Amino acid sequence: MTERFDLYYWPGLQGRGEFPRLVLEAAEAPYRDMGRLDEAEGGGVSAMMAILETGIGGRIPFAPPFLVEDDRLVAQAAEVSAHLGERLGLAPQAEADRLFARTIALTTADLVAEAHDTHHPVGTGLYYDDQKPEARRRSEEFRRERMPKFLGWYERLLSANPSGFLVGDRLTYVDLGLFQIVEGLRYAFPRRMAAIEANYPRVLALHDRVAAHPPVARYLASPRRLAFNEDGIFRHYPELDGA
Amino acid sequence: MTERFDLYYWPGLQGRGEFPRLVLEAAEAPYRDMGRLDEAEGGGVSAMMAILETGIGGRIPFAPPFLVEDDRLVAQAAEVSAHLGERLGLAPQAEADRLFARTIALTTADLVAEAHDTHHPVGTGLYYDDQKPEARRRSEEFRRERMPKFLGWYERLLSANPSGFLVGDRLTYVDLGLFQIVEGLRYAFPRRMAAIEANYPRVLALHDRVAAHPPVARYLASPRRLAFNEDGIFRHYPELDGA
Repeated sequence: MTERFDLYYWPGLQGRGEFPRLVLEAAEAPYRDMGRLDEAEGGGVSAMMAILETGIGGRIPFAPPFLVEDDRLVAQAAEVSAHLGERLGLAPQAEADRLFARTIALTTADLVAEAHDTHHPVGTGLYYDDQKPEARRRSEEFRRERMPKFLGWYERLLSANPSGFLVGDRLTYVDLGLFQIVEGLRYAFPRRMAAIEANYPRVLALHDRVAAHPPVARYLASPRRLAFNEDGIFRHYPELDGA
Repeated sequence: MTERFDLYYWPGLQGRGEFPRLVLEAAEAPYRDMGRLDEAEGGGVSAMMAILETGIGGRIPFAPPFLVEDDRLVAQAAEVSAHLGERLGLAPQAEADRLFARTIALTTADLVAEAHDTHHPVGTGLYYDDQKPEARRRSEEFRRERMPKFLGWYERLLSANPSGFLVGDRLTYVDLGLFQIVEGLRYAFPRRMAAIEANYPRVLALHDRVAAHPPVARYLASPRRLAFNEDGIFRHYPELDGA
């Protein structure tokens, strides 16, 4: 097996690519962030588009992010994160825990999709400006119903696990995912998060623990960690927030 | 390991539970469909709700469907399907193929979520009647942009694989998933599917091949295969369809 991972994602935003990127960074794995790499070195959006067009050996991703590792092509943020976590020592060892970690990762991916749809409830092919009334309505529902439901679920998992991690007794890729969720929700819905986040003390404690994990702390302080912005999944549109 | 699988899902509809159910049926695996089982035998919605409330050994599913197998609890339709496929001989053997199958399964889950959101674009907590204008707009976008994009992607995967299956050289759980997608889209959007489905001959051929697979054919002819209805993911609301 190679010791190199090529992660493909849009440059200029965290987006869904941030979930596998956090796994690579937390594991201090050697990787190339292909979308941000110079075209002269085989990177850039054109290199990514070429793989989306023709795939590699018949394996065609539907959308970024995707990972290329030797003859493997893995797409979908949750699947790339799980695969990397299992490859790089950031996944549980026991089979039952490993399966439940995947369950958590897919649920996190659902939350990400719902956070995205707060600003794109009609369709990804349209601009936010073309779906503002729908976005307002969906965001209200998301803030009132979905945020407490998802955050409450993570809190219940943490209540059931004395280690303070979501599954097993050490840091795994799903903890990194929850860290990113808290970061994203705080960015996109600061008023709502300020109003409710104290209800989820174990979630916040895990967030802080992940942020303090040395490789993660170094990554967050580096220029590789982009700021959130309004091209990503978590977007701060004040009209979509509210306590 | 036990030879028994307990699948938990809402009774009375296919929904997301149909994806793992098809894997169990295609493998002729012994399983209990817990939501449909008598309460006297430990089944019913109350048994499902109890696990959603307290979990099993600290593993709490966010939502149905979920599978209980010994000390394992696995949720998320795509993850349950992948796990069952790998356990029951309906997944690729080679690691690279196995990973790509999971990529396909998660993409299929995205399509399922988008099909659901055509009738619930504002929120799952609201009735369809409370979000009809938004549903009409989202459905138009789904029919015009998303259906061809997803179906075209499956078609390209099949074009690249001479076996006629999505990955590898034999039937796997992701082929069962695509079968269900075609069934669901034909039910929910009959006019749109009639207009475009001939553009995807390999998808249709695989659908027919899955339907003719003897254990699947027996299942489809049995009372265990419920009819589609307007409680499920794929709902036929004529006002949301169109060529």
